[in-house]
Amino acid sequence: MLGLGTVGAGVAQALLAKADSIARRVGCPVVLHRALVRNPHKPRDLDSILLTTDPTAVLDDPAINIVVEVLGGERPAHQYILAAIEQGKHVVTANKEVMAKHGPEILERAAARGLDVAFEASVGGGIPIIGPFRLDLLANDIQEVTAIINGTTNFILTRMAREGVGYADALREAQALGYAEPDPRNDVEGIDAAYKLTILATLAFHARVRPPDVYVEGITRLTAADFRYARDLGYAIKLLAIGRVAPGGLELRVHPTFLAADEMLAKVDGVFNAVRVDGDLVGQVLFYGRGAGAGPTSSAVVADVIDLAQRIRSGGGPTPLPPLDPDRRALPISEVWTRYYLRLIAVDRPGVIAQITRVLGDHAISIASVIQKEDVVLEDGGDSRHAEIVLMTHRASEAAMRDAVAQIGQLPVVADVGSLIRVEGS
Amino acid sequence: MLGLGTVGAGVAQALLAKADSIARRVGCPVVLHRALVRNPHKPRDLDSILLTTDPTAVLDDPAINIVVEVLGGERPAHQYILAAIEQGKHVVTANKEVMAKHGPEILERAAARGLDVAFEASVGGGIPIIGPFRLDLLANDIQEVTAIINGTTNFILTRMAREGVGYADALREAQALGYAEPDPRNDVEGIDAAYKLTILATLAFHARVRPPDVYVEGITRLTAADFRYARDLGYAIKLLAIGRVAPGGLELRVHPTFLAADEMLAKVDGVFNAVRVDGDLVGQVLFYGRGAGAGPTSSAVVADVIDLAQRIRSGGGPTPLPPLDPDRRALPISEVWTRYYLRLIAVDRPGVIAQITRVLGDHAISIASVIQKEDVVLEDGGDSRHAEIVLMTHRASEAAMRDAVAQIGQLPVVADVGSLIRVEGS
Repeated sequence: MLGLGTVGAGVAQALLAKADSIARRVGCPVVLHRALVRNPHKPRDLDSILLTTDPTAVLDDPAINIVVEVLGGERPAHQYILAAIEQGKHVVTANKEVMAKHGPEILERAAARGLDVAFEASVGGGIPIIGPFRLDLLANDIQEVTAIINGTTNFILTRMAREGVGYADALREAQALGYAEPDPRNDVEGIDAAYKLTILATLAFHARVRPPDVYVEGITRLTAADFRYARDLGYAIKLLAIGRVAPGGLELRVHPTFLAADEMLAKVDGVFNAVRVDGDLVGQVLFYGRGAGAGPTSSAVVADVIDLAQRIRSGGGPTPLPPLDPDRRALPISEVWTRYYLRLIAVDRPGVIAQITRVLGDHAISIASVIQKEDVVLEDGGDSRHAEIVLMTHRASEAAMRDAVAQIGQLPVVADVGSLIRVEGS
Repeated sequence: MLGLGTVGAGVAQALLAKADSIARRVGCPVVLHRALVRNPHKPRDLDSILLTTDPTAVLDDPAINIVVEVLGGERPAHQYILAAIEQGKHVVTANKEVMAKHGPEILERAAARGLDVAFEASVGGGIPIIGPFRLDLLANDIQEVTAIINGTTNFILTRMAREGVGYADALREAQALGYAEPDPRNDVEGIDAAYKLTILATLAFHARVRPPDVYVEGITRLTAADFRYARDLGYAIKLLAIGRVAPGGLELRVHPTFLAADEMLAKVDGVFNAVRVDGDLVGQVLFYGRGAGAGPTSSAVVADVIDLAQRIRSGGGPTPLPPLDPDRRALPISEVWTRYYLRLIAVDRPGVIAQITRVLGDHAISIASVIQKEDVVLEDGGDSRHAEIVLMTHRASEAAMRDAVAQIGQLPVVADVGSLIRVEGS
C-alpha cells in the first residue's frame, strides 16, 4: 500500500478484518505486505502492518503482486503508479486526479505488460460504476452520463434548499460537520466533479477526454432567491456533471442546474452521490450511494484487490481495453444548447419586460415563462421602485444566451443580472 | 441461442447490429451460429440467422462456445442448460425461474468443468445487479437487500397511488398497455418477485435460498382507502422484496409494504425497478432502471456474452464461486418482527378503540398512532353507525400480530378487518 491516511487505514482494516473471507473467495491468503507512510512513529490502530518511508520498499519488492495507491493528488502518486507497472505489479488506485489526467496512458502501459489498473474507488466511492461500464453496460452505446458526484456540494445545496439559508451559512455547516475542507475550493468550484466526469466520459464514450475539456462552474454564486424560485417552478438545484453525445461532439460540463423535481436525480440529497447512464439498449439506469468516506472507498478498493487476486490465481489476462475513438471531440460550451433560468432586477415600470424579451428575441431565444415580483428593495436603488424578473427560456445556444444576457445587462432599466442557470429535465 | 421470442429477437438484433463493436472489444468476431425456435416458418426480421427446431443442433454442435438460453420457464430450459454444460459450453441465461430453483447446482456443475453460467438478465432486466454482487460489492458483508423487482405490480401500484383508482381498474390499464399478461397471477401474486429475491438472497447472503423459503403476499387485496391513508401518513405502498440478516436467520419476504415516502425506493414509480443493498463497508447503495423489455434484457445478455467471449479469448478460468454457508436458515414469517398498519371497520360507539387496543396490549404490541374516520357506510351495516379505524403499531412479531388480529376480528364491535400491511423505513 502507498498511503495510510483515512482511506488507507480503512482499506488496511478491511483487509485484516476480512482476511478469512477474502482468502476463501480468492483461494489463497491476500496479505498486506508493507505500507508506505510519511511518519512511521504516528500512533495507529494497525500494529501488525510493516511500515516504510521508502517508496522503493513497496515498488521494488518482488514479493508484492498488487500495489494499492491511496495517497491522493497528482504527485508523487502518478510516478509511483508508473513505477509499479514497470516492476510488473498490478495497481489499484482511488486517485481521481491521476486517472482523470493520465488514465488512458496508464491503462495502455499496463496492458502492454499484461497488467491491470483498477480504479473503481476513483469515482463515486463505493457505488459500483466503473465496473458496470467495463462489464455490465458494455453492450450499449452510451448517449449520456449525468451525475451528482460531489457529496460536499450536494450537502450544501440540500441545506440551502431545505432551510432557505445562504451559501456561506451552508458551507460553514458543512465544514463544522467535516463534509467540507477548511479550503473548500476543490469541491465548491466543481474541480473535483470535473475530474470524475473526465473519468466517466472516457469510459462511457470511448473518447480521450481531458480535464480542460470540461466546462466548470461552481456553486458559490447561488442565492436563497434562486432556491425559492426553483421550488416554486418545480425544480431542484443540483451541481450536475453532464456528459452527452450531441451533434458535432461531446457536451462535457459541470455547473449548478435547475433539474425537474420529478427526476430521480433531483431526489438525491445530502452527501449522497448518483450516476445516471443512458444507453441505447438499457435505457436509463441509475446508481446511488455514498460517494466518499473510508468505508465506501474501502469497499471499492478491496473489491478491486479481490478481483485482481482472483485473476492472478486463475491466470486470466487483463481486462481488454476498448479502443478510444480519436474523432470524438469535446464541444466548447458556446456550442452547447440548453434551456435557461435568468433572474434579474429591473426598474418597475411598464415596458421593461418588453425591452428584455426583445433582446432575447433578437437572439432567437424564445421564452417559456416569466415571473415578475414587485417592490424589491435595492441597497443602492435610490428612489426607483424595482422588480425581480425571472425568465425561463426554451432551448438556445450558450453563445446566443451569453450575448443576449450581456446586452440585457447594458439596458438602462436593468439594475442587476442576478443569476443565469442552465435547466435540465422535462 | 435457445429461443427467439421477444427477448431472443432483441438479443439477436443487438448481436447483429453491434457485431463490429463487439468484435473490437472481444478481439475476434462473435457469431450467432444457430437459434432454436418452435416454428421456423414464422416471419421474422432476422433473415441471416440459421434456425432449427432440434435442440441438439445447438447443444451438441462442437463449433458453439456459448449457449444463450432465452426460452423462459423451468422446462425444458433447465434440461437444456445442463446439457449445454455437459457438452462443455458456457451458458448465458435470462431465466429467473431456473436460476431461483436450481442456480447453485447449475453453477457448481459448470465450475467443476471450468465453465461459467452468466445470469445478469435474470433479475432487474438491464440493471447491473448480479455483476455488482459478484464483483464490486464482494468485499462487503451484506445485511439487507430490499427491492422493487416487478415492473407490472409497480405500474399498478403507481396508478392506484396517483389516480386513486382501485386494483381492478389499474390492472386493466396495465393489461391494455401490455405491462400485464392476460393471466397476471405470476406478477400480481408476487411469484415472479419471489424468484428474483431467491436469486438475490443467494448471492447476497451466500446461503442456499429456495423459492419456498420466501413468504409471498400479492397486491390483489389493496384498496383505494389504503392508498389514501398511506399518503396522509407519509408513506408509499410498494410491493417490496426484502432479504435481511436478522437474529436467528434470514428474513425473506415479498409483500405490499407501507414505505416511508422519503426513502429513495418510495420514489421508484411506473414500470421501473430498483434494488437497494446494505453492506458493512459501502453502506446503502441503490441500482435503478427498467426491469424488463427486449432492450434492457438484451443489454444484460449481450454484456454477459461479451464478458464470456473475452474470458474465453484471454484463457481465464470461470468466476470463483464463494462457498455457501449451510448454517444460514430462512426464518418463518411468524418469527419476523416488523411494524404494521391495520385498517378495520367497527361500530362507532365509545370504548371501541379501548377494546381493540386492549387486545393488542395483551399481545405486547404497542401502538404508534390511531386515526378514526366516522360515518362509514357499510352495505350490510344495518342501522349501526360505523367508523373506520387505522392503527400504526410499533415493532411486533408476526405471530403476535396475527393472533391479535384474529381476536380483534372476533370482537362483536368489529365489522371487518380490512387490511393488515407491514411497514418499513424510518
